[in-house]
Amino acid sequence: MPPAAAEPLTPERILATTEEVLRRFGPTKATVVDVARALGVSHGSVYRHFPSKAALREAVTDRWLARSVVMLEEITSAPTGSAPSKLESWLEALFEAKRHKAGDDPELFATYTVLLAENSGVVDAHLTELIDQLGRIISEGVAAGSLAAADVPAAARAVFDATGRFHDPQYAADWLSPTIITEFEAVTALVIRGLRA
Amino acid sequence: MPPAAAEPLTPERILATTEEVLRRFGPTKATVVDVARALGVSHGSVYRHFPSKAALREAVTDRWLARSVVMLEEITSAPTGSAPSKLESWLEALFEAKRHKAGDDPELFATYTVLLAENSGVVDAHLTELIDQLGRIISEGVAAGSLAAADVPAAARAVFDATGRFHDPQYAADWLSPTIITEFEAVTALVIRGLRA
Repeated sequence: MPPAAAEPLTPERILATTEEVLRRFGPTKATVVDVARALGVSHGSVYRHFPSKAALREAVTDRWLARSVVMLEEITSAPTGSAPSKLESWLEALFEAKRHKAGDDPELFATYTVLLAENSGVVDAHLTELIDQLGRIISEGVAAGSLAAADVPAAARAVFDATGRFHDPQYAADWLSPTIITEFEAVTALVIRGLRA
Repeated sequence: MPPAAAEPLTPERILATTEEVLRRFGPTKATVVDVARALGVSHGSVYRHFPSKAALREAVTDRWLARSVVMLEEITSAPTGSAPSKLESWLEALFEAKRHKAGDDPELFATYTVLLAENSGVVDAHLTELIDQLGRIISEGVAAGSLAAADVPAAARAVFDATGRFHDPQYAADWLSPTIITEFEAVTALVIRGLRA
């Protein structure tokens, strides 16, 4: 029996291995059989947890996106800090996370760009969650009198759209530019100034 | 003699015909011979004005981009109107022009997206010109006391970046969304508010 099969086959183990397989074979070539082989189990065992290749790809995309949300949620729900400074930290953390994902592991990033295009429902839910976090920070600022917004969800959406160059994977190539940090700071300052009460 | 050859062969006629040929054959198939045939002249006559296929493609890209600049220049240098309202009109006119280009003639728009990727020097010069116009409007506002910007070129660049979703051709598919105008207005209002003195 291969050593990998000694541990129980959890959805989390399957997803971690799927990520490895995607990194190794690329999104077009990776199959459920490759994932099963890497785990030392039959492909039937994988299908018991994920009923189709599409379901497995969707779950791995969801897991990848969820990782950055945890850290952003911490900033959003922190009990201290003014709303403008939370907003700045949140935008910085998002940009930082994206740049690291794109820069440290470009192959996996390219893989996920393919998966994102496939799973637009998962992506839409992710974007909604991020914009909702922004809305909570803005609401807090409106309540405290540091920010002004007549329509909080619209303002949250506008902040997200205005900073797209620094989180939309379409712009990943620009993130290597030597001036990108300066440009990010200028847009962030402009947007936060636009929301101040 | 074909009727088209009756008129003198000017660079402008060659470029207008090249646009037609690109629209008909697409950017991968269109050749200088196709352009010459459509004009009723030899390809040598075309090469007398444009020394290579690359030079012709570059010139047609430049001409396409230059068309929208004329109208934006009119807004920029208008003798009346406050800087914030000029800024709003300028951003509206840019978005309107892009949406029309993408929506009215999607094939030509796709062609130009290919040409833009080929001629990054032409594109960079175009973007510099647009950001320079924004800078002139912002300077005017700073002088009149209606806008505030410590570094005008950086502020102009930030306005351009923050509104990218509404002029970057990568987003052309989003421009068909029923909520795009509302989203454009929210970002524009946020950005202009961020610049107010």
